[in-house]
Amino acid sequence: MPIYQAPVRDTLFVIRDVLNYQRYDNLAGFADASPDILEAILGEGAKLAENVLHPLNRVGDEEGCKRHDDGSVTVPKGFHEAYKQYCGGGWMGLSSPEEFGGQNLPYLLHSAVGEYFSSANMALMMYPGLTQGAIAAILTHGTDEQKQKWLPRMIEGTWTGTMNLTEPHCGTDLGLLRSKAVPTGNGSYKISGQKIFISAGEHDMSENIVHLVLARIEGAPEGVKGISLFIVPKYKVDDAGTVGEANGVSCGSLEEKMGIHGNSTCVMNYDEAEGFLIGAENGGLKAMFTMMNEARLGVGLQGLSIGEAAYQNAVAYARERLQGRSLTGAKEPEKKADPIIVHPDIRRKLMTMRAINESGRALLLWTALQSDIAHRSDDENARQIADDLLALMTPVVKGVLTDKGFDIAVMAQQVFGGHGYIEEHGMSQFVRDARIAMIYEGANGIQALDLVGRKLALNGGRAVQAFFKKVGDFCEENRSDENMAPYTKGLKKGLNDLQAATMWLMQNAMQKPDNAGAASYDYMHLFGLVALGYMWGRMVKTAQAQLAAGEGDKDMLEQKLVVGRFYMERIMPESAAHLARISSGSDTMMGLAAEAF
Amino acid sequence: MPIYQAPVRDTLFVIRDVLNYQRYDNLAGFADASPDILEAILGEGAKLAENVLHPLNRVGDEEGCKRHDDGSVTVPKGFHEAYKQYCGGGWMGLSSPEEFGGQNLPYLLHSAVGEYFSSANMALMMYPGLTQGAIAAILTHGTDEQKQKWLPRMIEGTWTGTMNLTEPHCGTDLGLLRSKAVPTGNGSYKISGQKIFISAGEHDMSENIVHLVLARIEGAPEGVKGISLFIVPKYKVDDAGTVGEANGVSCGSLEEKMGIHGNSTCVMNYDEAEGFLIGAENGGLKAMFTMMNEARLGVGLQGLSIGEAAYQNAVAYARERLQGRSLTGAKEPEKKADPIIVHPDIRRKLMTMRAINESGRALLLWTALQSDIAHRSDDENARQIADDLLALMTPVVKGVLTDKGFDIAVMAQQVFGGHGYIEEHGMSQFVRDARIAMIYEGANGIQALDLVGRKLALNGGRAVQAFFKKVGDFCEENRSDENMAPYTKGLKKGLNDLQAATMWLMQNAMQKPDNAGAASYDYMHLFGLVALGYMWGRMVKTAQAQLAAGEGDKDMLEQKLVVGRFYMERIMPESAAHLARISSGSDTMMGLAAEAF
Repeated sequence: MPIYQAPVRDTLFVIRDVLNYQRYDNLAGFADASPDILEAILGEGAKLAENVLHPLNRVGDEEGCKRHDDGSVTVPKGFHEAYKQYCGGGWMGLSSPEEFGGQNLPYLLHSAVGEYFSSANMALMMYPGLTQGAIAAILTHGTDEQKQKWLPRMIEGTWTGTMNLTEPHCGTDLGLLRSKAVPTGNGSYKISGQKIFISAGEHDMSENIVHLVLARIEGAPEGVKGISLFIVPKYKVDDAGTVGEANGVSCGSLEEKMGIHGNSTCVMNYDEAEGFLIGAENGGLKAMFTMMNEARLGVGLQGLSIGEAAYQNAVAYARERLQGRSLTGAKEPEKKADPIIVHPDIRRKLMTMRAINESGRALLLWTALQSDIAHRSDDENARQIADDLLALMTPVVKGVLTDKGFDIAVMAQQVFGGHGYIEEHGMSQFVRDARIAMIYEGANGIQALDLVGRKLALNGGRAVQAFFKKVGDFCEENRSDENMAPYTKGLKKGLNDLQAATMWLMQNAMQKPDNAGAASYDYMHLFGLVALGYMWGRMVKTAQAQLAAGEGDKDMLEQKLVVGRFYMERIMPESAAHLARISSGSDTMMGLAAEAF
Repeated sequence: MPIYQAPVRDTLFVIRDVLNYQRYDNLAGFADASPDILEAILGEGAKLAENVLHPLNRVGDEEGCKRHDDGSVTVPKGFHEAYKQYCGGGWMGLSSPEEFGGQNLPYLLHSAVGEYFSSANMALMMYPGLTQGAIAAILTHGTDEQKQKWLPRMIEGTWTGTMNLTEPHCGTDLGLLRSKAVPTGNGSYKISGQKIFISAGEHDMSENIVHLVLARIEGAPEGVKGISLFIVPKYKVDDAGTVGEANGVSCGSLEEKMGIHGNSTCVMNYDEAEGFLIGAENGGLKAMFTMMNEARLGVGLQGLSIGEAAYQNAVAYARERLQGRSLTGAKEPEKKADPIIVHPDIRRKLMTMRAINESGRALLLWTALQSDIAHRSDDENARQIADDLLALMTPVVKGVLTDKGFDIAVMAQQVFGGHGYIEEHGMSQFVRDARIAMIYEGANGIQALDLVGRKLALNGGRAVQAFFKKVGDFCEENRSDENMAPYTKGLKKGLNDLQAATMWLMQNAMQKPDNAGAASYDYMHLFGLVALGYMWGRMVKTAQAQLAAGEGDKDMLEQKLVVGRFYMERIMPESAAHLARISSGSDTMMGLAAEAF
């Protein structure tokens, strides 16, 4: 049985000490989250994760969801009760507006506990996770009436939400979408079509399910310009908010997947279902991106979550498994062998996982803070800067943290040797669950294209230049501090490679778009390396300041210095290989005819 | 349903044209494999793989093996008949001595068709695969009588073999082994103990199962010096070779695994089972390594096999899946979208997979050729050189090709987007099956330690120096050929990094063994990069010579030039990051106390 303990101490260090979140107490909701409250909420979240969600993780994997002949779907045993506790604790609406029953606390906090929840049970957390995306879309694009009708029940968790984009022939390229919407004349539409890969599409944990469905209104233009977004409930809801008869929506089948067995991934059939336009006619793509961007950060978080959970189990196993002797002489001579944590190659794995997890957590929380500033600040300039960083970091957080989360799960499984391949230890589940995060909400190759093709050039490169300046200034400010030099040196080298790669793209991708496509994946990872390195720089800086002042947890702070150094020595050097690949261009990559494969 | 087509043309190119195997027709068995025969055998192997083994691959994954209350195990349906055809075709004894019913053909050829078989059905091929390891041990360490008794039935496939090393508390560190052997006085032993993770430990495809079991003879020294190897048959066999009553061996349970469901992975219980010492008393470790080394090459081959099969499916999907338009304008304007093979990031994946697979195949076959020379040459000097290279390359082939095979399976799955996560497409199975190859027969971290800790220093570094000279000479010889320069330049850079890393190890690992452990994994991969790069150099050289002479398949040869260039531009640059990591040493890596994790 895998273990899990929420890393509350580390979260606190990042939010309170590194990000110094109290600086933002002029933002709505931040003043309510005093350090005591912050610590209390993290502690409560940790308890729910450890005691309620985590024990159901293996159960969910083993049991999976079941579709019955009438099209209904039951979730694994225990999920209902755990979901009820999640909702009862107010976790769904933690950062939602008070107007609709939420607590309006920082999104930063929502992300912090979200990590714990997904570490404990990723598949179960997808039900509320998808609901969050739907809530965001209705909040941003819904009419007041729609908000009043749908949001309160979703925020209390009585109704869950879904995102219906993909069709059998149409994933990334939404222009190919065929589902159609026919106006009924009374303000509603009849929605028909088939959607696939619909997470939480059908289940028995909520009273109603609010499907957000992309479809094409009769006569709409071809391609993505003719797509609209609709609210299509599982059961119709009258004006008083009472749940009534079944709508024309049904689950055709459940997909048999590699992982996240506890979540119901459905083929959904819409047969003249009653739907309501949300946002502008043919403005579905924009509304969809509201859900999507929120969801992408949530998926990046899943990468971190699985990485952390897998790491903790690898540590526990490395401590207890006795095998071989340390190369420097027996460490536990009274035993038949030393625990494998004495071996450098096991350390390499543990340190790599930890160096990524801790900076990944900081990057995720830093990005969540940008989201708070972008949405809650009164200062237009501050909002713009934060919104730029949020837009820039979203594909990086999604693409890089999910790739790394999967790598970490594989690495943690490797620590277990043959035992890692046996399902009962749960390491296989981490690998299988983590795998989907690289694919859904835009496969990571799409994240890379979003970064290179859209985010870099936005507003004349304003966002990326601001980020480079931030990191460059940090290196410059700390250059003469000899304690910081080992860190700023590595970070600066990475930044130089990233800037060189950016320059190369500016010079070579305009006239030859394939150069951008060929560079994109390496560019995204190079960007991630520098972003995580910047987080290490900031964490180390904070740790050194606290150590100098005799504040904080000395052991933890000193560990930060070592792990940060490991990042610079062992992980940052990948930047040069990325730059070399990027600047090799697309000629060779595209050099074969399609038939030559 | 996944596809598979054996890459016969590519195998022929490597064996016939690049390795020029006919140069070795003075070796036993090589003269029998004329080019016509070679082609015919590869063709027959391809047919068996494509038509018989491959159609059972999904079945095996879905159905798995079943253990019944009496301890018997049944394999998935269709496996019996396929195994019968495999044996009937003489594939088991392809390179075994004629004296025991084999065909004595080159091991090179055995490896070539072995790739096809494992691509088609890795789980099924493990039954004969384990038998090969057992055959090798009996051939090398058995008495004449033992060989006569056991080998003919194993080589015809009527009896299969297993390797019983691991115990619950004892994997890598065999010194901890507890299974015991008590002499009966009549030349046999009573074997007792429990073994876990025993592949093909119990099943119903063969008349008998010949378990090779490591155990400790009563009173033997502690640690690895007190381990002996025993033959323990499932059913006792009398002197006439007749199968008789059941021995004290039983399958206690089947492991529930992440993949290779078609293979029965057993907990085996030995309860005073009749066993026969093979090799010297307390010489079990040496005998075990005979099986192990053979098995390690076989596992490296599995990495290649899955990589190739996964690649082929990714290509097929990338050709047929229509999504988006080429960045350089519509390629198939008559369709609603272009096939995704037009997108650079899809090409990056396909080219990466192909660059690794084709050089991996060459490396594997080159290593198999060294095994043939080492075992069959009359020339002692040639034998020694080949044996050095074989010993050096075994951990590289195992560690690098299995890591890469897994990465490729993941990459191929990614090409499928969401469809890759659904079991029916078979891409998940490739990932789940490939995962075990990084673990069994010595986890890849152990391969890295074997390379750095044992193979590098062997005979004063004779093997590694010979390899460096080979690669260095190749670069030197072709330096002035402008067609070769783009390739030798990349290869030389990689070699320089590898030599610098080797020098660093010589200077820093002697006095501080943790430096060796900390460097080992990166060193193994750096070694693999250069070895694969050397194969690209040789393939490109051959291709250019044939193109210049107007020989061979022009399309294929020209493709080699492009893929080889891709390898040098996009994959070889990783060498610098490996060197940087290696030379950062172990201080930071070991800088935390074990309790600090």
